[in-house]
Amino acid sequence: MKGRKLLMIPGPVEFTSEVLRAIGMPTTSHVAPNFAEAFGRALERMRQVFLCPGGQPFILAGSGTLAMDSAAANLVEPGDRALVVKTGYFSDRFTSILEHYGALVTQVPAPQVGDAPSLEAVEAALSTGGYKLVTVTHVDTSTAICFPHIAALAALSRHAGALLLVDGVCSVAGEELRMEEWGVDLALTASQKAIGVPPGLALLVAGPRAMEAFARRRSPVGSYYADWSHWLPIMQSYEARKPGYFGTPPVNLIWALDVSLGQILEEGMEARFARHRALACAFRAGMRALGLEQVPVREELAAATLTAPCYPEGVGASLLPCISAAGVLVAGGLHPQIKDRYFRVGHMGAVTPSDILTTVGAVEQGLARAGYRFEPGAGLAAAQRELIA
Amino acid sequence: MKGRKLLMIPGPVEFTSEVLRAIGMPTTSHVAPNFAEAFGRALERMRQVFLCPGGQPFILAGSGTLAMDSAAANLVEPGDRALVVKTGYFSDRFTSILEHYGALVTQVPAPQVGDAPSLEAVEAALSTGGYKLVTVTHVDTSTAICFPHIAALAALSRHAGALLLVDGVCSVAGEELRMEEWGVDLALTASQKAIGVPPGLALLVAGPRAMEAFARRRSPVGSYYADWSHWLPIMQSYEARKPGYFGTPPVNLIWALDVSLGQILEEGMEARFARHRALACAFRAGMRALGLEQVPVREELAAATLTAPCYPEGVGASLLPCISAAGVLVAGGLHPQIKDRYFRVGHMGAVTPSDILTTVGAVEQGLARAGYRFEPGAGLAAAQRELIA
Repeated sequence: MKGRKLLMIPGPVEFTSEVLRAIGMPTTSHVAPNFAEAFGRALERMRQVFLCPGGQPFILAGSGTLAMDSAAANLVEPGDRALVVKTGYFSDRFTSILEHYGALVTQVPAPQVGDAPSLEAVEAALSTGGYKLVTVTHVDTSTAICFPHIAALAALSRHAGALLLVDGVCSVAGEELRMEEWGVDLALTASQKAIGVPPGLALLVAGPRAMEAFARRRSPVGSYYADWSHWLPIMQSYEARKPGYFGTPPVNLIWALDVSLGQILEEGMEARFARHRALACAFRAGMRALGLEQVPVREELAAATLTAPCYPEGVGASLLPCISAAGVLVAGGLHPQIKDRYFRVGHMGAVTPSDILTTVGAVEQGLARAGYRFEPGAGLAAAQRELIA
Repeated sequence: MKGRKLLMIPGPVEFTSEVLRAIGMPTTSHVAPNFAEAFGRALERMRQVFLCPGGQPFILAGSGTLAMDSAAANLVEPGDRALVVKTGYFSDRFTSILEHYGALVTQVPAPQVGDAPSLEAVEAALSTGGYKLVTVTHVDTSTAICFPHIAALAALSRHAGALLLVDGVCSVAGEELRMEEWGVDLALTASQKAIGVPPGLALLVAGPRAMEAFARRRSPVGSYYADWSHWLPIMQSYEARKPGYFGTPPVNLIWALDVSLGQILEEGMEARFARHRALACAFRAGMRALGLEQVPVREELAAATLTAPCYPEGVGASLLPCISAAGVLVAGGLHPQIKDRYFRVGHMGAVTPSDILTTVGAVEQGLARAGYRFEPGAGLAAAQRELIA
């Protein structure tokens, strides 16, 4: 099949037509009043979507990696101890970035790939003392594992005198995350995930304790571009609807962000969390009914924003072009240790029940082409039962 | 007047409808073959537009400041000496960035704001020896000064054993710049300028000597996100039409870049340079006919991509809303020393003769509203004579 395919990878995802219309509008001046209004409103809406009314939002031109870079560059000083709660590939990425800025990193590993460290293991590591910060990947895009105890982890971190930084790249605006209520000190994401905007924006909200730690730092920030000293006055200025200049803001992407955040808030955060959970349940039920295992070893670890099904016996990565031929783009494995044993399906942002059925249907067609034997329609029926329940 | 205004600031500028259509297309996967094709082709086209067939292009998600950050972070090691040829505000910006990464910077100042340092002054500074690199702002967006001797500066730098880095943010694809022929070791720009794509991309081409200096460096790169070690394999991979992953590339912006670079090459670089020169001459003639001085003190310093007219006697920054009311957005002054004495008009990228007349016309209407006395139509007639000549 030629032509448009449904995009069901873990980001970029399908975006709404209003978002695509906003990004395609003729660009205006970054100091025009209507742009200052959109930028300022987007900053206010960030606080609401991150559920962090007292936080400081940052909207930067860059990829999600810049969001991680920005968090580490501004909060780490050489010699600081950092604890990384490891749930997959992106925990290693965060480790590299923290170490780049001089942190002494200890990882709390999971018992196996597909599992998450226990709170007890984190507590034991923290008790060795002296950590300035703890990081956790809320949903690891490489394993589809959602760390299920963010609130408890925040409490442990605070008790130990450490900041909790949540890599929410595959979580914010999809997976349940209550920054302020749970005591998270910083959360970050990228535009092309559940936030629902084409790639190109790094998004962060820093809570008061993170901003205080930044204000107290004694060594210069290693990266010039990521340094909050440059960006903080700009964010404050635009939020007051007054343009400021450090670098030219990505006007079209910020228009699209403002539109998408508006749509997210119109749906409401509770309804949005519930929809993501329900659609994820339906998709996983479909996969199970087809006999496909999943990377997360327990149901409570399964993310609401993406699923990582394992290839069934006798089927390998050649399944992906078969699913694509059936009209849906999904992603291959990413975690180095198990890369060739599973694939990844994103279901976040503007995803609908129809998208779930379309995708389960395309996986069935792909499996059939790949020679796997199963009862045609079994996955669809199982997903549909969940959707109707 | 309400509604759409013509955008004549020095970036973002007016973009073609094909570029806006490309940025608004439904996003695809960053590993999809059609995206890899567009990314790879955009990299190839960068070499042609920068006139640097032997260079290494980088396309990064970020603002123009990231392009400067990336050049400095990767080519400066602590203790390196750098010479900054100063033509305005953005030379100071580059100085700050170079110093951030540990360079010992010497500035060659201009005799006054509105002028550029002489080659003799640069040569004298270089003769004190030991410079690893020289930087120059080709067109300073704060003063509309184009440094007119890039080729000679490159020869001097090479003779002194230094790399020449050209900040081409307001020049590449508008102002004449022949990277390889002139011996420029690195040139950089941002998407929203003469390259003709909405803001959000940092663009660089590094010549062989710059890449060798990078390969030889002994200290780690200060910024994680800007480090070429991460990006070089990705650029090489996409150019071979094979997706690679470090950070998610800004799919829609890269589509738009590919389209815009294609349009630039279709026009041809020589025709494009000539068009920019001709339109700039016409616009300046219009301003002169209205009695408006300009920031550059000599005609040979006047940029082809923007003009910086001074407010006439008795007229100040209140002229800007008057021009805006006449349907054209221009920019205020930026250089701290003369901020309130001039304004800035961008004429680059897809700019047309009609845009020039529209803008001269709006400046005339604005001046009339501001109470300035002049012969109505004098600016338009002067601009038109240049356009028809």
